[in-house]
Amino acid sequence: MTRDLRICFVGDSFVAGVGDPRCLGWAGRLAARAHADGQPLTSYNLGVRRQTSSDILGRWLGECDQRLRDGDDRRVVLSLGVNDTTHADGRPRVGPEESAANLALMLDQAASRGWPVLVVAPPPVDDAGQNARTAALDERFAEICGDASVPYLSVHQALRDSAVWMHEVRVGDGAHPGAAGYDVLAELLAPGWLRWLAG
Amino acid sequence: MTRDLRICFVGDSFVAGVGDPRCLGWAGRLAARAHADGQPLTSYNLGVRRQTSSDILGRWLGECDQRLRDGDDRRVVLSLGVNDTTHADGRPRVGPEESAANLALMLDQAASRGWPVLVVAPPPVDDAGQNARTAALDERFAEICGDASVPYLSVHQALRDSAVWMHEVRVGDGAHPGAAGYDVLAELLAPGWLRWLAG
Repeated sequence: MTRDLRICFVGDSFVAGVGDPRCLGWAGRLAARAHADGQPLTSYNLGVRRQTSSDILGRWLGECDQRLRDGDDRRVVLSLGVNDTTHADGRPRVGPEESAANLALMLDQAASRGWPVLVVAPPPVDDAGQNARTAALDERFAEICGDASVPYLSVHQALRDSAVWMHEVRVGDGAHPGAAGYDVLAELLAPGWLRWLAG
Repeated sequence: MTRDLRICFVGDSFVAGVGDPRCLGWAGRLAARAHADGQPLTSYNLGVRRQTSSDILGRWLGECDQRLRDGDDRRVVLSLGVNDTTHADGRPRVGPEESAANLALMLDQAASRGWPVLVVAPPPVDDAGQNARTAALDERFAEICGDASVPYLSVHQALRDSAVWMHEVRVGDGAHPGAAGYDVLAELLAPGWLRWLAG
């Protein structure tokens, strides 16, 4: 008898899989991978374009409460931050202190609900300046997750080193890859994802 | 230059694609079909298991408001009703009058936001009594959509006639098909979907 597993994938446009002609994104690829590995699950994709960590903080709990009522193993995968480090009027849309506080608060809220969390790093885009800011945030996020004993999949640098990811982002809209880029990201995440599901 | 198209798929577990090992459901298949036809889109899946039309009415507008802020063509695909006709304590969880009123109200709300809507019929499950109730609701829904000049894709009977759909539902959990069943449903919907997208 397999458990009744329900997982919400919460975050931004990368979570939503924007740009993927297969309409799966990395979240859909990981969910399908779990099915293929003999662990069916109900997955809900709650990624929203343009949303910063502050935007996500404002909606995520209500949306997950709607979806994580039933089932005997309820979990959350969280990925955010790229829209925080986007510059608007010469400043990040959300500063690093606030981004860090938002993530820490979300981890607290999840813990209070009893939902195990897996955090996925914000990926790089086609903008070296923004990537430097995101890489700094990536380190902060890793620390926050470490302090909260929440697994953090730190794929930011690996994606910067991926010719496929960086090429698809560049020839796309400057931020999102196509199907091959999402394949790369899902492959990077798969070991940590399967380890977390088994835990 | 293609338009920036954003679509929310709102409804129940069939919208969410429960049971599909490919993790696309019919909504993901239709979105991928649009991409393949040269119309990329941002699709958001807002299907939630066990939810009746009353449950969906309570959350759908807030969730769509989060997702349909940007873009120059913002739309909604709606499919609900199967959980209304489920019996609890010998009565439908939501009676047909209330189901009809809920749908009519949602169509009004969408019109007030300026969102074009496409409605997809509630599919059959492995329970003849419930299917009879759902078929009656299907007729009501068709009338309501006709009155509101909203296209309604009436696939309920075609799915009852589909050996693939009914077999997968029966050998599955009694309600949801697997990948082949969702293929069948997506194929039935594709002509109406593409016509609506072009309109």
